[in-house]
Amino acid sequence: MSKTIQNDILLKVLNNETVSRPPVWMMRQAGRYLPEFMAIREKYDFFTRCRTPELAAEITVQPVDIIGVDAAILFSDILVVPQAMNIPFVMKENQGPWLDAPIRTQKDVEEVIVPNVHETLKYVLDAIHLTNEKLAGRVPLIGFAGSPWTILCYTVEGKGSKNFDIAKGFCFTNPDLAHTLLQKITDTTIAYLKAQVEAGVDVVQVFDSWGGMLSFDDYMIFSWPYIKQIVDELSTITKVIVFAKGCWFALHEMAKSPVSALGIDWTCPPHVARELTDNKVVLQGNFDPARLLSPIEEIQVEVEKMIQAFSGQNYIANLGHGILPNIPVSHAKAFVDAVKNYRY
Amino acid sequence: MSKTIQNDILLKVLNNETVSRPPVWMMRQAGRYLPEFMAIREKYDFFTRCRTPELAAEITVQPVDIIGVDAAILFSDILVVPQAMNIPFVMKENQGPWLDAPIRTQKDVEEVIVPNVHETLKYVLDAIHLTNEKLAGRVPLIGFAGSPWTILCYTVEGKGSKNFDIAKGFCFTNPDLAHTLLQKITDTTIAYLKAQVEAGVDVVQVFDSWGGMLSFDDYMIFSWPYIKQIVDELSTITKVIVFAKGCWFALHEMAKSPVSALGIDWTCPPHVARELTDNKVVLQGNFDPARLLSPIEEIQVEVEKMIQAFSGQNYIANLGHGILPNIPVSHAKAFVDAVKNYRY
Repeated sequence: MSKTIQNDILLKVLNNETVSRPPVWMMRQAGRYLPEFMAIREKYDFFTRCRTPELAAEITVQPVDIIGVDAAILFSDILVVPQAMNIPFVMKENQGPWLDAPIRTQKDVEEVIVPNVHETLKYVLDAIHLTNEKLAGRVPLIGFAGSPWTILCYTVEGKGSKNFDIAKGFCFTNPDLAHTLLQKITDTTIAYLKAQVEAGVDVVQVFDSWGGMLSFDDYMIFSWPYIKQIVDELSTITKVIVFAKGCWFALHEMAKSPVSALGIDWTCPPHVARELTDNKVVLQGNFDPARLLSPIEEIQVEVEKMIQAFSGQNYIANLGHGILPNIPVSHAKAFVDAVKNYRY
Repeated sequence: MSKTIQNDILLKVLNNETVSRPPVWMMRQAGRYLPEFMAIREKYDFFTRCRTPELAAEITVQPVDIIGVDAAILFSDILVVPQAMNIPFVMKENQGPWLDAPIRTQKDVEEVIVPNVHETLKYVLDAIHLTNEKLAGRVPLIGFAGSPWTILCYTVEGKGSKNFDIAKGFCFTNPDLAHTLLQKITDTTIAYLKAQVEAGVDVVQVFDSWGGMLSFDDYMIFSWPYIKQIVDELSTITKVIVFAKGCWFALHEMAKSPVSALGIDWTCPPHVARELTDNKVVLQGNFDPARLLSPIEEIQVEVEKMIQAFSGQNYIANLGHGILPNIPVSHAKAFVDAVKNYRY
């Protein structure tokens, strides 16, 4: 890739270069709070949107046009990976991800395949090409995947859950099977993210949405070693951000890896995140998504406080989790503008 | 109260006396993993069990008889408090707590009453008397209430939730109303816990189940100040334990209060909890409830590791959250026995 990016402030920070203000984007920025997204959502179901490159590309670019974020993140879903591995997730209305036959036995795990991602996930790679055409170098494009642990959670539980107790029970009673499954997911994910980079994403982010359900000891057994394999492999060819929600307890360990940035959720105070990471990696976060419901003037004050609390240019402004569907667009824009108006 | 308690190891630890092993009990120990509990559950619905002193007392004593825990905790529910305040929660099958008309407007908040707890919650006080008869001084009895923030969460959301975004949105857009509601809940809770102590509980625990949904700053606005009012009032007449799930970030602040012990969930490593509390309060926890699915030998090893990691006699062994319904009774007993067999 030798494309020129006009607004490269995100990449500058990931390269530890000097900037005049933090870059800003929002997790789930291509989402339901945008009327333009809802218009497409009314016509096409969830996985149709993911699998149709024209739709995915259009959705991906929306927040760049409408909100003015400093990066696009590909519209897709972490469950396209298990789908490619012969685990046929569907999206149930008002219920979320659903698997008729969750993976729970040795036979189930054996039947899970490590696919050729260039074939099974070609539609994602096509979406990346199309998105880059639409972006025309305005901002960088972020690719992503779920962490192996998080994918295992959905795969074993068969659906969303408050605590993923079935998935945890599976790991604690069948650790060998769990590790076999985790390694298959890891191998697929590494190939998938490499293919995304070849197709043209400039950064990748790994989402460990459910790592925070584990104790530190179990995190070091069932989640982090697999994320670390991904980071080790991918960091040689691109910038890697890891966002592990609720995993403040593992930040110190994560900071020792060749990760380019670590995402922080809103329950971890910025100065604590700095201490836990010995101030040696770029941090990204951590505005409480529900705080975007506050009046705009309050959002502006809180954004300024957040940037100052992260003290340092090795920082990317973001939410501490995905933006909520009921956030007014004007509030989302106020968040982005408040960051863009800040000066170090 | 001048009753004599035969096994007073829990009270000894709360009084900072020397003990030969940690005391042990389990959150939700009177629960669905016990066949004896299920037998009663088949005959009587949830709030009937709470409201019938004979049933509540029988259920409360079950784990003392069957598992051999060092304390009983009254069988009841945190939602009996809003029920007493004119907020008519029901328990929906397979769905949990449900409120037809959630509290969301100024009128709603104004109509919430601070009741005479001796009348509206007499059935709880009767259950305490009956339980103490059945216990006959074998072990101490723990009373409890939800934190005002956690009660607000259910009251505004109207049901359980992953993130309580509606409740948070209410607070962030109507902070004055939120504080009015929180104060009403606090006043009721203080009166309620005092009445429990008069009726004969030996310790009280405040459960802040959803404090972990807040940032530290918002926790200090919407949750902790109200828990602290309760701790300040109750600590003059009894021992107070606060368990705030997911609130590692507030432990340092909590430790400055006159609390007798702080509960720790399994995501906060014991040595970190000690550091955050300057090793100056008794800590309680923090076995991952799902880890009780591990083989018994592994449970025994992990219990020993946990006790050692909390290093110090100012410690109460417990789970990091409520016991799960699918835990074999033999595993629950193995947990308790492992603690009881430990020697400092």
